[in-house]
Amino acid sequence: MKPLVVADLHASLSDPVLESMNFLNEVAGRFRDAISFAAGRPTEKYFEIEDVERCLARFREHLEVSKGLDPSQVRRLLLQYGRTKGIVHDLIATNLAVDEGVVVDPEAVVVTVGCQEAMFLVLRALRADERDVVLAVSPTYVGIAGAAQLVDMPLRPVRSGAGGIDLDHLADQVRGARAAGRRPRAVYVVPDFANPTGTSMDVRTRRALLRLAEELDFLVLEDNPYGLFGDHDERPPTLKGLDENTRVVYLGSLAKTCFPGARIGYVVADQPVSGGGVLADELSKIKSMTTVNTSPLAQAVVGGKLLQHDYSLVAATKRESDVYRRNRRLLLDGLAERFPGGELSWNTPAGGFFVVVDVPFVADDQALERSAGGHRVLWTPMSHFYRGSGGEHQLRLSCSALAPGQIEEGLNRFRAFAGEQIRESGVVR
Amino acid sequence: MKPLVVADLHASLSDPVLESMNFLNEVAGRFRDAISFAAGRPTEKYFEIEDVERCLARFREHLEVSKGLDPSQVRRLLLQYGRTKGIVHDLIATNLAVDEGVVVDPEAVVVTVGCQEAMFLVLRALRADERDVVLAVSPTYVGIAGAAQLVDMPLRPVRSGAGGIDLDHLADQVRGARAAGRRPRAVYVVPDFANPTGTSMDVRTRRALLRLAEELDFLVLEDNPYGLFGDHDERPPTLKGLDENTRVVYLGSLAKTCFPGARIGYVVADQPVSGGGVLADELSKIKSMTTVNTSPLAQAVVGGKLLQHDYSLVAATKRESDVYRRNRRLLLDGLAERFPGGELSWNTPAGGFFVVVDVPFVADDQALERSAGGHRVLWTPMSHFYRGSGGEHQLRLSCSALAPGQIEEGLNRFRAFAGEQIRESGVVR
Repeated sequence: MKPLVVADLHASLSDPVLESMNFLNEVAGRFRDAISFAAGRPTEKYFEIEDVERCLARFREHLEVSKGLDPSQVRRLLLQYGRTKGIVHDLIATNLAVDEGVVVDPEAVVVTVGCQEAMFLVLRALRADERDVVLAVSPTYVGIAGAAQLVDMPLRPVRSGAGGIDLDHLADQVRGARAAGRRPRAVYVVPDFANPTGTSMDVRTRRALLRLAEELDFLVLEDNPYGLFGDHDERPPTLKGLDENTRVVYLGSLAKTCFPGARIGYVVADQPVSGGGVLADELSKIKSMTTVNTSPLAQAVVGGKLLQHDYSLVAATKRESDVYRRNRRLLLDGLAERFPGGELSWNTPAGGFFVVVDVPFVADDQALERSAGGHRVLWTPMSHFYRGSGGEHQLRLSCSALAPGQIEEGLNRFRAFAGEQIRESGVVR
Repeated sequence: MKPLVVADLHASLSDPVLESMNFLNEVAGRFRDAISFAAGRPTEKYFEIEDVERCLARFREHLEVSKGLDPSQVRRLLLQYGRTKGIVHDLIATNLAVDEGVVVDPEAVVVTVGCQEAMFLVLRALRADERDVVLAVSPTYVGIAGAAQLVDMPLRPVRSGAGGIDLDHLADQVRGARAAGRRPRAVYVVPDFANPTGTSMDVRTRRALLRLAEELDFLVLEDNPYGLFGDHDERPPTLKGLDENTRVVYLGSLAKTCFPGARIGYVVADQPVSGGGVLADELSKIKSMTTVNTSPLAQAVVGGKLLQHDYSLVAATKRESDVYRRNRRLLLDGLAERFPGGELSWNTPAGGFFVVVDVPFVADDQALERSAGGHRVLWTPMSHFYRGSGGEHQLRLSCSALAPGQIEEGLNRFRAFAGEQIRESGVVR
């Protein structure tokens, strides 16, 4: 047969968002010996296959002892088709109470194949027709942009501002969209150590955002993959923790707090729906036609991990959190040592995986190619996190998956690369 | 906040397809002590949790010995984020060669979260705009109807006919859709022991379908979850095995051949795409925004199972296949014993999980409620598998997950129920 024509396939396949993911993966695959400040992966330092087996055994024990299931019921639960909303929903609800002080009905939890499926389910539910739009603080995590693409839902940018989101701009965008006949359904935010900027939302802004959501009638999609990985043990309340009017749909990831390889995320959607039930029930119906149910074996591993640590992911990730604190410190100190003259500048996030560097040269895909090929060091052009223009002179450095020696050597390489770019671009500061 | 209005959510959430799934699950949940001829689940007779651990260990050995990975590479592969197209794609390609004689490039395989995600990815890719439609033999598996709903793609019915599909009607539907300005992109078929009808496509029809696909330029989506479970050891060639022009997108499920709890399916999409690559590469991009990647832990379990049986799922499912043969025989003989007078009639599939019964009363949701409440026996109204009207006097019996005693007792209950319905509807034959 003659080749399928890309223009005859879904528009997302020609969109820069999916192309950019592909490009970044492709570069990483081509320069495997490079040191990568690009990958936003969790540290592998404490990975153990045996941990998987221990977690699985712990969850089985829970089913037998606490739930009173007999062996055939346990086998059925773990190996057969299962409940669409998941089998560790209750453990996740308990975790949210323990770690975040957030009380949710377990029936409002849908366990998903990673947080990405949770985003897809929510946007698929909210995108009823061509009037519907979603807003997101820009620059934006590519996952939400990609999910919006898949459901043909325009993503409108909101400026980030000092407190993590520019609420005046958000209000303008919501009102403007409505005036133009559109329906702004929700705003997507990562209040804690956002990807890609590393910035956080202060508590006053969190409260004001919820008031605005109530006043202008939109939902808030709170994504929180990095909240446990701050410099300080005390953490601000989540938006869901401050949410008195079920305005917040909470998107959870267990990739960074358990194993990415389990691919377990979840969504808390306790919004009432006309006719009865909550939004989680509607998301479950969509999930039944997307992935049917999340692998109960994979859920069991994550469930066992929660049980091992008395439902606390703070406790479960103590060692990893220390690694991330140390690595951020090494990265920030290392940048300061190597660029003392103000040629570059960068932000100083108090947590998470990412630091954003402002550079006096164009940090685009071609620059990344030169960095990878000539200096064996990878980073992410910030332009990939903007829709349209933006971020041309910025790049993202991630330090989560590197050992100290790799950070030092990586920064040496980065200095050599940046020095070359500055000289060649003829910038004098 | 005021409740979300269902009419403001995606149309799929008001569609009968999703409602019907919900209803059937709800009935099954409400009458847990009923004998269920409704569930199309695999037998649990040989389920063993220890098997999961053995499979995982076998796959690790494969990575270490055959692939030469060191322990840190194994940990990374199983626990970290991974390749979007999967890590058991090569084992699946070998399985297709061993069991089906089908040779495919492993790069054309995308491992998915069950076959349902494979359907979603394919339809999402093919549905570019409102002109695109997909065709399916009617009555149709609800999973494809649901996936089509999620991407706003109309599903047009094709009559099944004697050979498993009425090719004249298919040609009419394709030409008619084109004349009306639509783009019929693909036809969905289950050539072997289809759900819900149990019927199969003869080899002549398979070849003719492929010729028609070439002549009228559409793709064939071949779904094959039951092909290994026939009365006879010799099996007809799959459509993919007969496919000389990459017309066939092959949808595979490992739910019935390994464990449903692993949630592993796959799609073989070797269709060339303009600009290079194959359709699998495009599906991979969509998957990166749907579930990112399939749990490598879950893939490892399935991979280990394939390795244990020298890549043959025929060998791996010998015991299960015997159970299904016995159960079909018990079901068909049991129906003949209990309804000797021709009050009911049924088909006699040569494989798979399902038998369709024609009844002289309306076999709708209300009848199912009466059967469940009054007689403690469940079945599936065939009307759920039709878009619009159809199947009002038919029901589906599934025997895959029952023990012999349950089939006998279930049929006794079903006879009592059917007798009551016939008397009350006043039908005399």
